[in-house]
Amino acid sequence: MSSVSAKKNISTQTIRRLPQYLRVFYDLHEYGRSLVSSTDLAAETHILPIVIKKDLQSIGAPTKLRSGFKVKGTIEAIEDFLGWDNLNKAFLIGAGHLGAALLGFSGFKNHGLEIVAAFDTNPERVGQEINGVAVYHTAQLKTIIKSKKLKIAVLTIPGAAAQGITDTLVECGVKAIWNFAPVKLSVPPSVAVQQEDIASGLAELCAKLKSKSS
Amino acid sequence: MSSVSAKKNISTQTIRRLPQYLRVFYDLHEYGRSLVSSTDLAAETHILPIVIKKDLQSIGAPTKLRSGFKVKGTIEAIEDFLGWDNLNKAFLIGAGHLGAALLGFSGFKNHGLEIVAAFDTNPERVGQEINGVAVYHTAQLKTIIKSKKLKIAVLTIPGAAAQGITDTLVECGVKAIWNFAPVKLSVPPSVAVQQEDIASGLAELCAKLKSKSS
Repeated sequence: MSSVSAKKNISTQTIRRLPQYLRVFYDLHEYGRSLVSSTDLAAETHILPIVIKKDLQSIGAPTKLRSGFKVKGTIEAIEDFLGWDNLNKAFLIGAGHLGAALLGFSGFKNHGLEIVAAFDTNPERVGQEINGVAVYHTAQLKTIIKSKKLKIAVLTIPGAAAQGITDTLVECGVKAIWNFAPVKLSVPPSVAVQQEDIASGLAELCAKLKSKSS
Repeated sequence: MSSVSAKKNISTQTIRRLPQYLRVFYDLHEYGRSLVSSTDLAAETHILPIVIKKDLQSIGAPTKLRSGFKVKGTIEAIEDFLGWDNLNKAFLIGAGHLGAALLGFSGFKNHGLEIVAAFDTNPERVGQEINGVAVYHTAQLKTIIKSKKLKIAVLTIPGAAAQGITDTLVECGVKAIWNFAPVKLSVPPSVAVQQEDIASGLAELCAKLKSKSS
């Protein structure tokens, strides 16, 4: 199945919708459903049936003629496509409010991510545990990344510190950076970066609000 | 200019990129630049020139033949399209880690949003101030929404409480809800909802990571 991602260019919008489908399919599986139509999925997700069909077919979700998508097979297809069938160990840098909020998010383990260490420079946080995750001093970053063989970093630090830390991460062999700092990071082409921009969601909300009131 | 949003259907992806363009244009304006090419914008944003051109033209950004986009006029076009030329008062419900992180985000005022009140039920938080914003008890919600005439809500509460609070908000005349709770909200068609799903960004990161390693 991993050939799917290599063969086809799946759109960002499709990829962003996959976790939402996955949650519905988990529920269906729990309730013992083995098949589901795109119309039923549309009622659950408020996404158009035609969009759902296209999204799921693009990642190779198995169907049964006229009866819709196979529940178990589609779960496997989505998990396989995203690599969520394995739990990837990750670490977080910056254990402030946003970092703590992410450490408190119980859903990550269903989404292939286990945050096993956090780093901060604030003496009030270093040595503490947040939701069961130990907070180390950032000075220990290199040692711990190497000893635990960590490849995925979550950055929740101020923008000014982000590029410097990123350079260190790249040097330590980190392969993916989930960046919540409000700066564009420069990395070699071999490193994946996902930039979160809180203002993007706000822009969407404002555009919707404007279209409703016009 | 507000006719632009009414006339054309601008894609979600375009809308989500607008804040990023806006930040670059603010910088250019500060440095005294009056014109900028899409090639220069591409170097700043890592977005393809053709995408930038299409995005900015779709919202009516003014151009000068062969010289690119007019800096001041494009700032006005984006701000006008998103309604960010006015500061909208908003309030936040749920002053936990994520709520506190949002209250600490200084960028909102540049993005048309001023959070003027926060609500929580935790006695340790009620009566406190977080980044200059007073935290009230959720029991005061109706009174304060009405007295301050607030129309925009930011929801950073657990999923189980979200629909109940939403029904109250709709009753109080709230017109837009920025929802960080991990549930789909039911609202009348007149109310705008923007659903943030932390797993969407993670899905993007994982898809990128997989494509780099395959």
